[in-house]
Amino acid sequence: MKRTVVDTMTLKSFFEPSSVAVIGASREPGKLGHEIFKNIVDAGYKGKLYPVNPKAADVLGIKCYSSIREVPDEVELAVIVVPARFVPSVISDCGEKGVKAAVVISGGFGETGAQGADLERQLVAAARKAGIRVVGPNCQGVNSTAVGLCASWPLVRTKGPISVISQSGTVLAAIACWAEEEKVGVDKMVALGNKCDVDETELLEYFSNEPTTKVIALYIEGVRDGRKFFRVARAAAEKKPVVVLKSGKTAKGAKAVASHTRSLAGKDAIFDSVFKQAGIQRVSSVEELYDVCKAFAGLPLPSGNKVAIITSSGGSGILALDACEELGMNAPDLPVEVSERLKEKLPSECILRNPLDLTGSATSQMYDEALTALGEANAVDAFITIIGDPMPGISDVIFKHVSQGKTIVTVMLGGGKAEAEEKAKLAGYGIPVYSDPVRGAKALAACVRRALKISRG
Amino acid sequence: MKRTVVDTMTLKSFFEPSSVAVIGASREPGKLGHEIFKNIVDAGYKGKLYPVNPKAADVLGIKCYSSIREVPDEVELAVIVVPARFVPSVISDCGEKGVKAAVVISGGFGETGAQGADLERQLVAAARKAGIRVVGPNCQGVNSTAVGLCASWPLVRTKGPISVISQSGTVLAAIACWAEEEKVGVDKMVALGNKCDVDETELLEYFSNEPTTKVIALYIEGVRDGRKFFRVARAAAEKKPVVVLKSGKTAKGAKAVASHTRSLAGKDAIFDSVFKQAGIQRVSSVEELYDVCKAFAGLPLPSGNKVAIITSSGGSGILALDACEELGMNAPDLPVEVSERLKEKLPSECILRNPLDLTGSATSQMYDEALTALGEANAVDAFITIIGDPMPGISDVIFKHVSQGKTIVTVMLGGGKAEAEEKAKLAGYGIPVYSDPVRGAKALAACVRRALKISRG
Repeated sequence: MKRTVVDTMTLKSFFEPSSVAVIGASREPGKLGHEIFKNIVDAGYKGKLYPVNPKAADVLGIKCYSSIREVPDEVELAVIVVPARFVPSVISDCGEKGVKAAVVISGGFGETGAQGADLERQLVAAARKAGIRVVGPNCQGVNSTAVGLCASWPLVRTKGPISVISQSGTVLAAIACWAEEEKVGVDKMVALGNKCDVDETELLEYFSNEPTTKVIALYIEGVRDGRKFFRVARAAAEKKPVVVLKSGKTAKGAKAVASHTRSLAGKDAIFDSVFKQAGIQRVSSVEELYDVCKAFAGLPLPSGNKVAIITSSGGSGILALDACEELGMNAPDLPVEVSERLKEKLPSECILRNPLDLTGSATSQMYDEALTALGEANAVDAFITIIGDPMPGISDVIFKHVSQGKTIVTVMLGGGKAEAEEKAKLAGYGIPVYSDPVRGAKALAACVRRALKISRG
Repeated sequence: MKRTVVDTMTLKSFFEPSSVAVIGASREPGKLGHEIFKNIVDAGYKGKLYPVNPKAADVLGIKCYSSIREVPDEVELAVIVVPARFVPSVISDCGEKGVKAAVVISGGFGETGAQGADLERQLVAAARKAGIRVVGPNCQGVNSTAVGLCASWPLVRTKGPISVISQSGTVLAAIACWAEEEKVGVDKMVALGNKCDVDETELLEYFSNEPTTKVIALYIEGVRDGRKFFRVARAAAEKKPVVVLKSGKTAKGAKAVASHTRSLAGKDAIFDSVFKQAGIQRVSSVEELYDVCKAFAGLPLPSGNKVAIITSSGGSGILALDACEELGMNAPDLPVEVSERLKEKLPSECILRNPLDLTGSATSQMYDEALTALGEANAVDAFITIIGDPMPGISDVIFKHVSQGKTIVTVMLGGGKAEAEEKAKLAGYGIPVYSDPVRGAKALAACVRRALKISRG
């Protein structure tokens, strides 16, 4: 499918439209046209909002129009939720109205067979003629928290540093849900769907230039133009962290990709090497995609691979140490001057090694002493602090040291109800917390890989 | 350290004592002696409970005694939270009183150096003289939900099928917290601490004979007697699933193990092969330990390695497929008769392959049709069902098929608030749910490995 010349500036209408029409907005709860419209309302969209539906006078109390052509003002973005067969003509109407961009949520296009593919060609033709950029069709929409535009589901409103591009609506939604739940937040999210026009490469370029996006998460099954993707990805990764989850790794997986999104999964080894060369971090599960983005979003980049583990739980410390070693990080012995200093500051039961085991009688002050001593000695590049017991005040200690530029991956587990409070405080500070030492180590390893890639140039 | 002849019957006093004294019970919130006593009260311990503390008239309104010798009735179990230096004489007092078992929470023994090791020898000598079995010292206690005895922290009360033996209190607590949160529940839990008497092998044997324990989780750093462990573990794994997390995999990890619990981590390759021969499932993180136990606890064992993936999310289905392939499971094509049958029953947009993609317009009824058709054709040994959208009624569908003996790993992600309700229902049915396709696949893989081991004899 040939494409129009890329003008990434036009993508702005997807994320900062001054007005939005939802074509197919419905009064009926449970219907997609209702849920999408309601989510835009509930997200507090800051522009003008027009429901379009010939059978309703209003939707959620907002005056409804029978056609987009009847909307009295300008419309910048159209969100389309009508049955597939109506979409090409709706796009033409949008063209007449001067709409700049359309998100086509509706399915029933290329993914369903020859007839749908024909409809999709008509959609593309109408959009090109009208000069309208299209996300979708057959997609879970777009979310831009800065302007309160949740043209997707579920409802996610918390502003944050992560932007997501996903060939799977569910992967997108999962990351959105976790980021909302943990108050990490998201910046912009796009479900690609059939990507009849806008694709991962163009979005990657756009997000790489967005100052509100600090890290880009990507779920892909294949790419349209490998060379171009590589070029754009490398440039993007020079500006900010890019984390990718690519499925179709195995032979059967690649076959399934072909029937899911008609993408060519390609040889996985080639992708793997492209990702490495481009300085993109590859992950192997949805949770890991989120975990790694969270680390990049909330922590300063370390300057190398030397890690100190500070723990109240001996066992968890060893699990983290095993993971660090397996992931190619280096957990050096404590420098003598640090051991000497900590011997004076910490109770005698503490094990002054790496892991530095503060034992079950650890307090926040002890973590503070340890972080200070190791930090001042410049002994390591990053920390994994494991809080394996209720630890009042720990969030403020971690916040203080992260604010001073330290890369600290915090792991909290086994602390029961007392833990939740400190977790919430850290979330408020924008500092990531992990529930398992190995998950924390994996997230840190991605940061270290990026740091080393940058330092090697 | 030589040990007394093992009589596992005596371990019963740790888990079903008719009376418990908490020596060192405190009135002061925040103190361990208070938290432990309060947890036993709050867990609704069914037997007689005696706080012992010379400085208090009562603790939480329960009459307090200045010494265990002054308790007017028999005491079966003593939970000891006094400073280390008092413990040997307290154990002697317990002996005079006829106490059968003691959980020594207090630290300050072998783990702290030569002086502590000496105290620990005195403790052991006193216990042997008195015929008292000891868990600990330096441990996070014992929990037995059947009798409401939470002599540990945090407070965990939900009865369930998992028993845990852990050399780390935090690993124990983490599993307890997750099992409580998800209402999976636990049966019996023991933090080993310095294991001056009762060790992992003896507990493994005991739990393998406990009818309320359906699966045994083990976190270990080393074992005392390798041959004996192997013999007991193999016998236990013949009776029920045993899942092990062993740290000290790497050279540095093994060194850390030596300073944490003075265990010999041993060559990891040897452990790995021992676990395989014994039919024990090895995992590599705390979360995976919980994930796998949850699968064994809530699902019938599959009869082989053939898996069908049923999904509303194409992308998540492919991620699960990749994981299945990498984990040695087999996702065969759908038999022709199943495709034919489903072609009639399902909408045309569904992709009738494996993964069976019901698409974003999936309903619970469609999952039911798919599970029924595949189940009746006996096409596979197990299922991964991925719910990537709000799906009212799905819990009842899954429950129906699991009740009919089907092994169904359920993955829910991206469903927002609507998801929580169905998740809670599945928890009520005792059916595990995972938040990531790869985590679900890993849990299923452990079940498949056990099934194959059993079928090979």
